[in-house]
Amino acid sequence: MSEPTTDLVHRIETLEAQAAIARLSADYCRGADLRDLELFLSVWADGAVWQVSEEVEFEGLEEIAGAIEKQWESTTRAFHWTSNPAITVNPDGVSARALFDVHTQVQLPDETWLEFAGTYVDDCIKVDGEWQFARRTAQVHSQRVVL
Amino acid sequence: MSEPTTDLVHRIETLEAQAAIARLSADYCRGADLRDLELFLSVWADGAVWQVSEEVEFEGLEEIAGAIEKQWESTTRAFHWTSNPAITVNPDGVSARALFDVHTQVQLPDETWLEFAGTYVDDCIKVDGEWQFARRTAQVHSQRVVL
Amino acid sequence: MSEPTTDLVHRIETLEAQAAIARLSADYCRGADLRDLELFLSVWADGAVWQVSEEVEFEGLEEIAGAIEKQWESTTRAFHWTSNPAITVNPDGVSARALFDVHTQVQLPDETWLEFAGTYVDDCIKVDGEWQFARRTAQVHSQRVVL
Repeated sequence: MSEPTTDLVHRIETLEAQAAIARLSADYCRGADLRDLELFLSVWADGAVWQVSEEVEFEGLEEIAGAIEKQWESTTRAFHWTSNPAITVNPDGVSARALFDVHTQVQLPDETWLEFAGTYVDDCIKVDGEWQFARRTAQVHSQRVVL
Repeated sequence: MSEPTTDLVHRIETLEAQAAIARLSADYCRGADLRDLELFLSVWADGAVWQVSEEVEFEGLEEIAGAIEKQWESTTRAFHWTSNPAITVNPDGVSARALFDVHTQVQLPDETWLEFAGTYVDDCIKVDGEWQFARRTAQVHSQRVVL
Repeated sequence: MSEPTTDLVHRIETLEAQAAIARLSADYCRGADLRDLELFLSVWADGAVWQVSEEVEFEGLEEIAGAIEKQWESTTRAFHWTSNPAITVNPDGVSARALFDVHTQVQLPDETWLEFAGTYVDDCIKVDGEWQFARRTAQVHSQRVVL
């Protein structure tokens, strides 16, 4: 006996949510690395919080824009490579928790390269049919200078 | 003419299997790196085999738990970043072969960092509706000390 | 009221396209790194273009085969790790644009290791039901010798 179509729609929506949230994370990294402000800002919900350390967070698109532009001024280049996605869509279908590990290399103006290992912890919400970050917290596990 | 619903269910199940197996690999890495034994053990089927080199393998949850705890004792930190997933679900729908490339950085107690390049070769099975590793083989292509 | 089945098929096809294109990229990397010519060539459409720099491109399977074999002769080992997939299937359902970031490590015969950061920009097409690369352009953002 075949399943009712409504159940299939729900299962497809969950798969689409996972794909959309993985894409958010890709757009965040690519926006940051290509210094594409429009792309970087496109991933955030209104009033979203970007928590970059235990003490520092930025709230709302204006603060987030200022923060990424400051990062761009203080670094020459950066690469954010994310892996190990673990995306759990909540039963409500419009919110999700996502984890991504991130390997980051950043070049400073003195040409030093820094390497970071971290994890992004994301609260995602679906607004008007589109997934966005309500909060992205960057946990840094390790930082070192690379030669 | 639209396709029969049973065929759609099969296609959705294949997509769900790929997502579930990618999640297994993420949970394995995150369990190992955060030293979360419960998460690390959650990915294995009963009687699963974890083959860590051509000569060494561990069988069953108890041996696997002992092996990862020994790794944690002999290292300070580790990061496992997986990429290039190639997941092939078998026609039976309850078994699959998966490949992931892995870039690993490990810190030893003397603060040396080692870097590995490898591939995971996975036999996955679906038990009681849940995908698990029946066997994960770690192939190491390269190991070097990083400065 | 449930949605018409034809719409569900379209949504499933989009998810399948994304999975198939991610797999293409994995097969490209694994083919290159394991020096498996058959696997490496399997990802390209007839007449495909592999653009490896702004000035250099290879067209068709024969030229592409010659180019990868030359890479294999001039290097000892290579690892291509891709991340941040951004795959957009066009409304026609048979073409797509994909972006992947790539972190590459290459060992030269003198045992030097080079590290690259780049982005692949891919034009993908569906031919006889199978997704393939019509063009893959490798953009290199950074290259450095690692110790």
